[in-house]
Amino acid sequence: MSKLILLRHGQSTANAAGEFTGWTDAALTEIRQLEAHKAARLLHSADLLPDSIHTSVLWRSIHTAQIVADDLGRSWLPVHRSWRLNERHYGALTTRKKSHVRLQVGTHQYRLWRRSFEAPPPPMPPDELENLRADPRYADLPHRTIPACESLADVLTRLLPYWIDEIAAELRHGGTPLVVAHGNSLRALVMHLDQLSPAQVAGLNIPTGIPLCYDLDEMLTSKHSGGHYLDPDTAESAAEAIAAEGEAG
Amino acid sequence: MSKLILLRHGQSTANAAGEFTGWTDAALTEIRQLEAHKAARLLHSADLLPDSIHTSVLWRSIHTAQIVADDLGRSWLPVHRSWRLNERHYGALTTRKKSHVRLQVGTHQYRLWRRSFEAPPPPMPPDELENLRADPRYADLPHRTIPACESLADVLTRLLPYWIDEIAAELRHGGTPLVVAHGNSLRALVMHLDQLSPAQVAGLNIPTGIPLCYDLDEMLTSKHSGGHYLDPDTAESAAEAIAAEGEAG
Repeated sequence: MSKLILLRHGQSTANAAGEFTGWTDAALTEIRQLEAHKAARLLHSADLLPDSIHTSVLWRSIHTAQIVADDLGRSWLPVHRSWRLNERHYGALTTRKKSHVRLQVGTHQYRLWRRSFEAPPPPMPPDELENLRADPRYADLPHRTIPACESLADVLTRLLPYWIDEIAAELRHGGTPLVVAHGNSLRALVMHLDQLSPAQVAGLNIPTGIPLCYDLDEMLTSKHSGGHYLDPDTAESAAEAIAAEGEAG
Repeated sequence: MSKLILLRHGQSTANAAGEFTGWTDAALTEIRQLEAHKAARLLHSADLLPDSIHTSVLWRSIHTAQIVADDLGRSWLPVHRSWRLNERHYGALTTRKKSHVRLQVGTHQYRLWRRSFEAPPPPMPPDELENLRADPRYADLPHRTIPACESLADVLTRLLPYWIDEIAAELRHGGTPLVVAHGNSLRALVMHLDQLSPAQVAGLNIPTGIPLCYDLDEMLTSKHSGGHYLDPDTAESAAEAIAAEGEAG
């Protein structure tokens, strides 16, 4: 039996402002840091100690992971970072306010972009994409690997190789990896773990800062579909709040 | 031509208190953090941007590296941690005050333990060694790999495999690794790089928080013996202060 711990980074300024963040680096909020400290306390209370950490290459995931490792007295844990764990690339919606987008394009299109499995958002303008491709953190990637936008299906496709080659490999060797990632990269991973349909994943929302744990057998099948949150009550109300993002007004 | 950047972690509470630290985790000092920020500024001014980071598994090296990466806007750099970059294991001297040790055993023996290449300090008592071997950060190591004490020669022996397999391999592929380590693991590495004799390395002191850069040809031979500090004046006076540690009074 292996244990997998998933954690969505603490709330970012962009989350707080109701913006699509995607591959941009959002600054810290105080709340984000508090959430990371709380996540560490929950792991400590559950005696659930990771022996490796996986993050995206985005600052909010990296920093959340550092706080958790430090608080657990495990700053020395091996850390692996990959763009394959990045948030969904929101294309032209990046940094735009969710509520503005909904008012502009209508609720139907807004929900399609946010929650459909296959609909990508409109592509990022060429000059912004050029800047993204020039970012040194993606220097080793062929340019066309860096997308102009991503559907959730695209996220799943680019995430799966990392899951199979890195995280699942550790689980098969009895490790307890902690994956600190993003709303949509974690939705894609949970979709794969729980074998959810596109319709099921549309209703799946993962709250920030609450560890989600999976007990996996040797075939890496979850004993309990959906895993279990270490703070289930808070997780439930937080997931409802995410579902409602950009919908009011 | 490849570039190698060496950085001794910022001053720890143990450094400040004049203690032998070795493999124990010393808490942070304000000065340590300032030194790390300054190291990042020096690297930035010299336009010397690492593309990977190597640390020991000790907190003072890990935290220094995090500050430097954050300040350079490169939190996403791949990080590799290894016990092979740890500080010298000071055995029974660990956590003891340097000045007390010198008064107890005499200046000759004190200097021999501190600066001789081959003389190990007295071994750590068995119960403390047992605790060290139970530390989860060394869980993957065979017990007898974890020493009861180390001479500088022992440090060199355990450091070289990591240098050859990891750091030198990156340099040969044109990378610019930043190695954030410790007074004695860096002395051992510099000894190897500059082909110093045991007598020469006895007089070598590496100050905290000042990047030391090597330009290396394809044979990984340094163009300029001793490399160059990014702040040579401060480095010189700091090295003199280290040489004098525990000698006063």
